[in-house]
This record gives sequence, structure tokens and C-alpha cells, in this order.
Amino acid sequence: MATAAAAKAPASLPPFLAACARQPVPHTPIWIMRQAGRYLPEYRKVRAATTFAGLTRDPALACEVTLQPIRRFALDASIIFSDIMVPLEGMGVKLDYAPGPVIETPIQTRAQIEALRPLVPEQDVPFVMESIRLTRAGLPAHVPLIGFCGSPFTLFCYLVAGKPSKEFALPRQFLHAEPVLATMLLERLADAMIVYLRAQAGAGAQALMMFESWGGLLGPADYAAFALPAVKRIIAGLKDVGVPVIYFANNCMGNLPSIAQLDVDVVGVDWRTPLSYARGVLKGKAIQGNLDPATLFAPKETLLSRIDGVLADAGPAPGHIFNLGHGIWPETDPDAVARLVDYVHEKTSHG
Amino acid sequence: MATAAAAKAPASLPPFLAACARQPVPHTPIWIMRQAGRYLPEYRKVRAATTFAGLTRDPALACEVTLQPIRRFALDASIIFSDIMVPLEGMGVKLDYAPGPVIETPIQTRAQIEALRPLVPEQDVPFVMESIRLTRAGLPAHVPLIGFCGSPFTLFCYLVAGKPSKEFALPRQFLHAEPVLATMLLERLADAMIVYLRAQAGAGAQALMMFESWGGLLGPADYAAFALPAVKRIIAGLKDVGVPVIYFANNCMGNLPSIAQLDVDVVGVDWRTPLSYARGVLKGKAIQGNLDPATLFAPKETLLSRIDGVLADAGPAPGHIFNLGHGIWPETDPDAVARLVDYVHEKTSHG
Repeated sequence: MATAAAAKAPASLPPFLAACARQPVPHTPIWIMRQAGRYLPEYRKVRAATTFAGLTRDPALACEVTLQPIRRFALDASIIFSDIMVPLEGMGVKLDYAPGPVIETPIQTRAQIEALRPLVPEQDVPFVMESIRLTRAGLPAHVPLIGFCGSPFTLFCYLVAGKPSKEFALPRQFLHAEPVLATMLLERLADAMIVYLRAQAGAGAQALMMFESWGGLLGPADYAAFALPAVKRIIAGLKDVGVPVIYFANNCMGNLPSIAQLDVDVVGVDWRTPLSYARGVLKGKAIQGNLDPATLFAPKETLLSRIDGVLADAGPAPGHIFNLGHGIWPETDPDAVARLVDYVHEKTSHG
Repeated sequence: MATAAAAKAPASLPPFLAACARQPVPHTPIWIMRQAGRYLPEYRKVRAATTFAGLTRDPALACEVTLQPIRRFALDASIIFSDIMVPLEGMGVKLDYAPGPVIETPIQTRAQIEALRPLVPEQDVPFVMESIRLTRAGLPAHVPLIGFCGSPFTLFCYLVAGKPSKEFALPRQFLHAEPVLATMLLERLADAMIVYLRAQAGAGAQALMMFESWGGLLGPADYAAFALPAVKRIIAGLKDVGVPVIYFANNCMGNLPSIAQLDVDVVGVDWRTPLSYARGVLKGKAIQGNLDPATLFAPKETLLSRIDGVLADAGPAPGHIFNLGHGIWPETDPDAVARLVDYVHEKTSHG
């Protein structure tokens, strides 16, 4: 469907970028968080021959796994294969994936924060930009490439806790026990993400996405006090970059009134946040989401009715990018993904 | 403050029960989820001499740790020390705490579901009722005792996954892959919780609370299809029990429109769900919550301003029970708890 639409209107924006700009689209564009990932046998094959970290650092392999889902499915966007922790390694943080990120020495003191090096992307993480250049060259014209980073608060959670956690109690305690240090660390992370995202756009990323994976652990007052200013700082630093910015606000329904203040083009929401509610609060922004990844395990009729539900909840206004409400699960059947992508295109095609 | 208020109006309901009924109160009542717990040195001392499971099964010890926070703080309610998994052991499920519940054989087949025994509380878990009788006898008259259980979907998550999990992907897949079996298991759990809660009320519990710890993992469609009917079934089974029913809806902001249908007296919400939003959706119900447990690590001025924020967001209408938005964290300083309880009383005292 995407190919047909692009062929009909070659001069117009690809559907994904049109939706980011809330312009009319030939069909609702769709892509899938973690679409380059373990649910694909061809990904598992590449991954088996290296480590996760090795995969992020090898442009040829990162390009290959980024392109794999594009070959299989009629997806409307591609996202570079990498990890939100990659630039932190460039700042001097020693970490490993087990499989979640584990920090050798969790960051909890002023001295450790001051010892973080400012990021110089082409020097510290050149392989990311090379992956983007290779991938952009390998993608069809109608499939834009998304670059990304973690939000400052999300990175803060991993750095302070030192490892994945259900509640991230330690970083949340740190915010309150050491608000000045917390803000200092969040600002340094924001400054690094500005140059990192700008370098990705410079290398060919056609949209930039920030993953606020853990901001949903903060109530509205803490989100507004700590997470939001750091995101605003990044957005201010991207003002002249000329590509759409997407903010994925995981589990942030209660924080949407704050998020409405952000000058971003698109807000992605998780499967728990009704799109109609998000639309109401985020007037003037496109929305992205939000099928529950669990739905891909349902029988066909249930899956299609839940897709219908997402489309109905998004409403007829332009500016909806279909996606899952969270990353696809490793156990997912690729056939269910094909069914999802094709059904969204069929159901929303305007001719 | 609570004692003074009770002395002034001895014939009236204790503040906690008045707030459940949305009647005027001398001050906003407060209690704290997991108030009998590891942040108290006197709890740790009792716990060190036994196991967690042993503590739940020993009425004298369970009574002792339930009373500990009541001796220390001017709390307006007490909740019996136990665990949501306790009645499942009575149904024949073998489990251990490590420290979260680990099921010997996760429940995933029809045969396993059919093998679950209906619960006979006075026979299967007599120690819970004995704990309630002992504790009620030891509590001051103005401090009501709450009995509780886990919601069917929350218990389902542990039973199907077999252990604690961040996302409970397996139980969520099971809902979609085996909707008939899932509903069968949820209904059996609901039926067990009906007799369990009725037995607790019979033993002296003056309010009954259901912990929907994991319902917030479900988007609105799945919550309405699976979690809600099982909760409705319990509430129907408690119709004539004569004590207020509280439903703690953790991380369920997007599910509140469904929850508004429930015939419960009080809905508890987590720290991410604004009380003003909950009030608006849950017209006619009292609300309970919702200070972030992390706030207890803040300097005094921040703590008091966040308490002010919760009180302001709850609004002046009757029917607010102050609580944390989640269980208190083990690292919390008991002095911060004293400050919280006293400040809520002072700030809301009507004379």
C-alpha cells in the first residue's frame, strides 16, 4: 500500500512525515517499536554471531537488522537499530547489557557527575552516524529513517540505579534527597542528547524520537519539576534542526497536561493512555500509538477488532501514526505483524 | 488529633469510616499502605525471628506487627498484616516468598484451574480470622481495622507467570491466547475472594479492600473485558456484608471510566493519577491517596508542599482518605511518617 501511494504522489511527503506534520495521508502510516528485534528469525541469526553491544557498534550489522523488518512488512518508517545507553558509553560510563543495562559504578555523587565527558558524537560514537548513513542509503524513498535517544530522566534512572528496576526507587529517592545534583545530572544528559540527536539528523535521520521510558514513574509534580525541564532543554537545542521531533511518553497519562507544553511534533503514548484523551489534551500535536503488544497474541478477529478500536479512538483528524503502545515482544509471531500492518493500511486507505 | 476528635464526638463514626461514607470528618483521616512493614525497626525485629510466611500464619505475631504503627503514629485506620497470596495457599497452590511470591507450578492449563479447591476460610486459613479477632481487640475504638485481598486479575498474574514480573507478559498473552480459560480462572479467584472477604468481615474487619496491583498493565479494552467483570463478581457477593469496600486501582488512570461503574465506596489511586481527575470520573465515590512514597525522602519543606498539593488536588468535598499512592518503601525514615501523619491532621483539622 505504501509503495502504491508513494508511486501515485512522488512529489509529496512520505505518509509518515505527512502524519508528523498533521497533513492528509493516503493511509494511516504504521511502524512498530522494536521492529528490528528478537521476534524476527533473521534478527536472531545476526544477533547469535555477536553481542548486543557488538551489534550496536557495527554499522553493517546495525544497518542489516534495521532493514530486515522493512523487507518483510509494508512499514511506513524505519528506526535505526541502537540503544539509548550507547551515547552514555561515549561520555565515559562503563556499562554492560545483561540483557538490561548494568552500570559498572552507579552515578550518585557530584564528582561522578562532573567527571562525565561532554559527548562529541562523531568522535565518541561515530558508528551510530555511519549506521544511519548506510541505512538511509538502503531504504526505499518512501520509508523515512528515525534517529533516537533516551530522555534525560530515563537515562538518569539507569545511571543512578545502576541496573534495570521495576520501580527505580533509588533514582526517585535521589531526586528528593539531592535535587541540585539530580538537576545537574539531568542537564548534562540533556546537553549530550542535543548534540547526539543533531548528529543523527546530520547523518540522515529524517525524524528524531526521545524515549521517555520511565517518566511515567513520576507523578505530575515531580515530572514537572525534574523530567520536563530537561526535555524542554533538548527541544530548545533542536529548534533549527528541521526534522520532526517525537516524544514517546510511556505510562504518562497523568503527565500529559505538562507534556502539552512541549514544542514537539508528535507525542507517542502507551497502550494504557486512550488516544482520544491524548488528542484532547495535546491539541495541535500528532499522536503515535497505541495497540497493546499483547494483542498480537489474540485470535485474528480479536486482533482486528482491537486495531479498529485504536483507529476509532484516534479519530478521523490527520496526525495519527499507528504503532504499538510499547515495544513488540520477542515471542510475537511475525505473521501477526504482517496482518497488523496490512490491515491498518487497508482499513485507512483513501484510494 | 484523632484521639481528641474521637473524644469530642464519641457516638459518631471514626473519621476513616465517616470518610468512606463521604460524611463530614473532624480531620482528613490518614493511613499508609504497608504501614506494618520493614521501615519500622520493631517490625524488623519480629520478622528476624521468623519467615514472612511464618509471620502471616501466626496470629499473635501478625497482630503485634499490625499494632506497631498504631502505637507510633496517630493513624486513622489499621490494616491486618497478611499477604494477598495467603488464600491461594488455602486453595492448594504451593508457593514461597523470595521475597516476591514464587509459584511452585505456574497455572496455565484447564486441569490446573479445575484442580484449585474452593476456599473454605475458617478451615483453610483460620489464622487470618484469628489475627483479625486479636487485632480488633487490641485496637483503640477510633481506629477501624481493614481486611483485604488481591483482585482476581492481580492474583491471576502471579499464578500464570509463576513469579513477580515487570510486565507480566505471559499472563497478558494468556488472556488473549486462552480467553475462556483465563475467564474461568478469574471467576474461580473471584469466588474464593468473596468467601475470604466475608470471613474477614465476620471476624471483625470494619472495611474490606481489594488490591488491583496489576490491573494497570491492561489497557481500557482488556481491563473491561477481563479484570472488571471479576471485580464486579466480588462486589455482588459482598452486597449484604455491611462494611465499606475499597478498591485500590494501581496505575489505572485510563481505566477509571470502567472503575466508575463499580459499586464500591472508595477507590484508591496511585501517585500518578491526579485526585482531581479521579474525583471527576468517580462521582459519588470517596477517594483514597495519593502521595508518592518517594516524597518521604524529601526535605521537610518539599514534603509539606507535596502534602499540600495532594490535599488541594483532593478538594474540599468530603470523602478523601489520605494515603500514599503506593506501599511505603523499606528505606523510609519513620520520622518522616510521623511528620506526614501529624501535618495532615493539623492542616485539615476543623477544630
